[in-house]
Amino acid sequence: MTTVSILGGSGYGGGELLRLLLSHPQLEVQQVTSRSHLGEYVYQVHPNLRKRTQLKFSDPAALEPVDILFLAQPHGQAQHHIAEYSKLAPKIIDLAADFRLRDAAFYEQWYGEKHAAPEWLSKFVYGLPELHRAELATANYVSGVGCNATAGNLALLPLVKGGLLDLSAPVIIEIKVGSSESGAEGNAGSQHAERANVIRTFSAFGHRHTAEVIQEMCVTDISLTMTAVDLVRGVLATAHAKVKQGVATKDLWKAYRAVANENPFVRIVKEQRGIYRVPEPKVLAGTNYADLGFELEESSGRLVSICAIDNLMKGAAGSAVQCLNLMMGWEETTGLEFMGLHPI
Amino acid sequence: MTTVSILGGSGYGGGELLRLLLSHPQLEVQQVTSRSHLGEYVYQVHPNLRKRTQLKFSDPAALEPVDILFLAQPHGQAQHHIAEYSKLAPKIIDLAADFRLRDAAFYEQWYGEKHAAPEWLSKFVYGLPELHRAELATANYVSGVGCNATAGNLALLPLVKGGLLDLSAPVIIEIKVGSSESGAEGNAGSQHAERANVIRTFSAFGHRHTAEVIQEMCVTDISLTMTAVDLVRGVLATAHAKVKQGVATKDLWKAYRAVANENPFVRIVKEQRGIYRVPEPKVLAGTNYADLGFELEESSGRLVSICAIDNLMKGAAGSAVQCLNLMMGWEETTGLEFMGLHPI
Amino acid sequence: MTTVSILGGSGYGGGELLRLLLSHPQLEVQQVTSRSHLGEYVYQVHPNLRKRTQLKFSDPAALEPVDILFLAQPHGQAQHHIAEYSKLAPKIIDLAADFRLRDAAFYEQWYGEKHAAPEWLSKFVYGLPELHRAELATANYVSGVGCNATAGNLALLPLVKGGLLDLSAPVIIEIKVGSSESGAEGNAGSQHAERANVIRTFSAFGHRHTAEVIQEMCVTDISLTMTAVDLVRGVLATAHAKVKQGVATKDLWKAYRAVANENPFVRIVKEQRGIYRVPEPKVLAGTNYADLGFELEESSGRLVSICAIDNLMKGAAGSAVQCLNLMMGWEETTGLEFMGLHPI
Amino acid sequence: MTTVSILGGSGYGGGELLRLLLSHPQLEVQQVTSRSHLGEYVYQVHPNLRKRTQLKFSDPAALEPVDILFLAQPHGQAQHHIAEYSKLAPKIIDLAADFRLRDAAFYEQWYGEKHAAPEWLSKFVYGLPELHRAELATANYVSGVGCNATAGNLALLPLVKGGLLDLSAPVIIEIKVGSSESGAEGNAGSQHAERANVIRTFSAFGHRHTAEVIQEMCVTDISLTMTAVDLVRGVLATAHAKVKQGVATKDLWKAYRAVANENPFVRIVKEQRGIYRVPEPKVLAGTNYADLGFELEESSGRLVSICAIDNLMKGAAGSAVQCLNLMMGWEETTGLEFMGLHPI
Repeated sequence: MTTVSILGGSGYGGGELLRLLLSHPQLEVQQVTSRSHLGEYVYQVHPNLRKRTQLKFSDPAALEPVDILFLAQPHGQAQHHIAEYSKLAPKIIDLAADFRLRDAAFYEQWYGEKHAAPEWLSKFVYGLPELHRAELATANYVSGVGCNATAGNLALLPLVKGGLLDLSAPVIIEIKVGSSESGAEGNAGSQHAERANVIRTFSAFGHRHTAEVIQEMCVTDISLTMTAVDLVRGVLATAHAKVKQGVATKDLWKAYRAVANENPFVRIVKEQRGIYRVPEPKVLAGTNYADLGFELEESSGRLVSICAIDNLMKGAAGSAVQCLNLMMGWEETTGLEFMGLHPI
Repeated sequence: MTTVSILGGSGYGGGELLRLLLSHPQLEVQQVTSRSHLGEYVYQVHPNLRKRTQLKFSDPAALEPVDILFLAQPHGQAQHHIAEYSKLAPKIIDLAADFRLRDAAFYEQWYGEKHAAPEWLSKFVYGLPELHRAELATANYVSGVGCNATAGNLALLPLVKGGLLDLSAPVIIEIKVGSSESGAEGNAGSQHAERANVIRTFSAFGHRHTAEVIQEMCVTDISLTMTAVDLVRGVLATAHAKVKQGVATKDLWKAYRAVANENPFVRIVKEQRGIYRVPEPKVLAGTNYADLGFELEESSGRLVSICAIDNLMKGAAGSAVQCLNLMMGWEETTGLEFMGLHPI
Repeated sequence: MTTVSILGGSGYGGGELLRLLLSHPQLEVQQVTSRSHLGEYVYQVHPNLRKRTQLKFSDPAALEPVDILFLAQPHGQAQHHIAEYSKLAPKIIDLAADFRLRDAAFYEQWYGEKHAAPEWLSKFVYGLPELHRAELATANYVSGVGCNATAGNLALLPLVKGGLLDLSAPVIIEIKVGSSESGAEGNAGSQHAERANVIRTFSAFGHRHTAEVIQEMCVTDISLTMTAVDLVRGVLATAHAKVKQGVATKDLWKAYRAVANENPFVRIVKEQRGIYRVPEPKVLAGTNYADLGFELEESSGRLVSICAIDNLMKGAAGSAVQCLNLMMGWEETTGLEFMGLHPI
Repeated sequence: MTTVSILGGSGYGGGELLRLLLSHPQLEVQQVTSRSHLGEYVYQVHPNLRKRTQLKFSDPAALEPVDILFLAQPHGQAQHHIAEYSKLAPKIIDLAADFRLRDAAFYEQWYGEKHAAPEWLSKFVYGLPELHRAELATANYVSGVGCNATAGNLALLPLVKGGLLDLSAPVIIEIKVGSSESGAEGNAGSQHAERANVIRTFSAFGHRHTAEVIQEMCVTDISLTMTAVDLVRGVLATAHAKVKQGVATKDLWKAYRAVANENPFVRIVKEQRGIYRVPEPKVLAGTNYADLGFELEESSGRLVSICAIDNLMKGAAGSAVQCLNLMMGWEETTGLEFMGLHPI
């Protein structure tokens, strides 16, 4: 068995990761740390794990060597300690935003502060298998992905890969998100009575995840607008763009099919009947799927491209485990087989 | 115009009260206090009041004399300061639990601490007009009501008033509540991601509101069980009891009709068709109604009596304003005319 | 008293209208019709009206003359019967889409069928007071507004009126809507188990309400994309556009303030602190407000303009009553004073 | 591989069953029937199954012989055709209510009609492994369970098994349910705008599932009261009862622990800290767990016993697959390993 530990396991990303690791046939979870819940059973924080593990949260200062170390801390921790962590494990996957951007200046531009370990940036591979599958196979250091960035990147992927976008028109990505994005800490506005029933645009411009889309898609006239809706898990990205002159619906089908065929967790949802005709995060809870759809107004060249994911899975822990499978040479889908529920 | 101030106006109860007072034709709101939001516009905390008032939160220490003073502080404050408050206003209505119980020993039994102003307990009238209309007409000091207690009391009222209950059988009141009951402060469990989709029994026995039902209904073999559900506003109390031998459905109709006829805000909901056949808090948001229904299993004498209210209205601010109307000799329904919404 | 009747009162729009008319001090409701609920008490369908009216649904064929006739039927009825209706009442307000577009060819383009009464189109005034206040004062025939169109129109109004938009860039309006938009009839996809928790883009392009925005705003490179979210009442329109070169945030403030100052139901929500910093439909349920906000990225000229409304109020019945007030020379806000609830 | 077919696979129970069967390592799904969706891909109805199966709905009339046949039809079908079905498969598991009650007269009493195949009633084993594990090992015909009955039965099981109940006091089971209980067909009241935000008591007495609790628990002075809340999946049963004199909290712990120890899917949730202190269906979506908790008021002997389940899993498809595992001599938990999600 390969041993694995999670540094910072009491948050939502860490909890979801732990669920996946516990059911992964190749792995043995060694430690899960939490300062605030030190000594508690992990199932007291993550109640779904009751009767599935007797692990207790351990002290982050007492982390032992391990084959693979996952970092699931708040943003800004890992870059200060990456050198130490690298002595504990030969392979590290960081779910936070510390090592997502390759360029230190670009990091500073979007995060408003100097990166604490710029020399490490180039050692990390951006952990979205749909973009970097080959590199991941030989990577030792993998960054996690921003959940909103992932939805945005995958909404654009077939278009960028197929060279179908009219880059003279702006790209606008409207993103709707559930409340688990706020993290387990929460804030005044995430209290149920204030957060239920919302359609609340909390970031019109400048959300940090924008940087990941710019980096990965090389599209610069782009904006992400973030709106919270009444849902716990899920992200829907709706990318508004224009296609190059002459691009028709059949060209789009071809481009989307190519991406779906290459990637086990990408599906196209574009039905003419039934209730579920377009991608929806609702039915993705707990799964690693990214569902893609599109609509072209041929007369104007206006395009809407949609991507739905579970922010804690494809947008965080799921992609991380998928990366791990690739790094270890295991079947890419191992431990990620859950189909999701209907209805839910 | 009669002047009125609210001590403690940043919470949910205080905000709802302010909404009512602002639209009350006989009243002029003089001050609304908040220590934590001092100097902010009240509409920054209660966004529904934007463009309706330019009031700012003032300092509780700078409260000025007024005709009527509402206390909307957390429980446990008013009993320490009631003597001072009484110098500021000839009439006081307290929304907290400080003066709901008439007996100091009974208070200590349920609240686990000695009452700080036991001599004031007898000066207060319990502020539920359906129970104390006549007394309220001459009262100067009125306590608010517990929202769950109100739903429980009104579910039992026709039965107790009609002498229909078999008091040898236990009375069990199952209460389901929305998240606004937790108050604006909230807690870890009231974060949206944890509080959404719940059916969470947070108090099986011993909820403090039980004391108000025992005091007002004089039923002693009684328990209240509290369960949180996914809703912001609303309480549904389902009282399970047995009726005396021989009591038939027509006797119950008579008892419930008597209560509905005497009380402008009590309605009976017991339909044979349509979607809304039973009392539901869903359609009561913002209204002062208490909807009552019942079902008798004649073969066994088992009875279910149901009461739905909006916890912030009939269960708090609405009843308080209704009391004010009675105290001032105004039309009982003044300022409480909102019909509620459908659908919502 | 002025008499008023509603043709088609069992739907959500008709029910909301009835609520408003019942509490309007100048009006007496004479008849409310429904074929499917003929003879039932209106409160059996609209449970909020219990104890507020003893009206029963009457036969649409038995409609009697009245001062003002509201039409709240499904789209496509009124244009076939408008001549008859006009004999029953000197003033008619139609909530459906039959008379919203002024041009018969434009109607055919968007609705896919010839208009049945093209000669009537020019007699109707588009019923959004913020756009046609002066005309409404002398109108006898007023059309209702599309709820999504209203949110879109009001999001653009300050920009168009101020001449601030760069019309060479496309305008994209992302609209998120609650379930009451589907109407009381519903469909398979609006069953709770399928409709709860959704972020479902049901119309990427070509929604009929687009036509109303094109007509009223005279912006042609525009699209509306419609996404259903988990909410009952409410619409949020987020308009993405570019401003003309040199337009700064202060210019936008000026334009938005001008609109808010002229219109009693328009408010600007743009706060630096607190939970409610941007327009949100959540706190508008039952009110006639349109809350506006905006964000400018000065470096790029990208603009987001946001409008939140209650689809059944400002987006339907509320605007209709506001129009009525203007038509009759009454205070514009009469019967529309409800402030809305917080929390909800 | 063992072959299996589902008769009636377009409903929620059938869909959930199909999800389980597709991921069960010992099974090969042969046919899934649906008259109304004949020829459609099953993933068009159950969108979670996209990219997981290319099965299409087949004609129920063209059902072929198979090792195990699951019946997932509406109630009342199977009893008319059981003789035919028994020729198609040596082992049958019926999810409907046709064969849950052992006694034909008792069936008639609760279902209001004569049973069509009373001679088959005794051939079926009631399919709740926690009650009939030994019998199931040799059964060929197994009935499904009522979801509400299951929550009620498991809430009472430790008490009945331990002989702890004071049977002179009435037992009242308050049950709160999500919307997936209504089934995929739905009705007017289950439209989202009417069903969202509800606390709606749709059955005070006489719910058919009561019969299953009476049969299995042998408690006769019992009632089930059913209340719909805003949730898609989940049932919470709260049983109110009295314990025999002298029964203390430690006796209850012993009885509940015994049941949890014997049953892989039963867990006790009774924590002193954290958010999840009591059983909640929220975290059980997609799992086969039954979470139990209790609270005793020692002074009065009043007891609350709580059971939370996912109505489509432990209350339907999950228990059915667990029964199958027992019937086939496989590991009881096979195919039922999903841990559930947090948060959700």
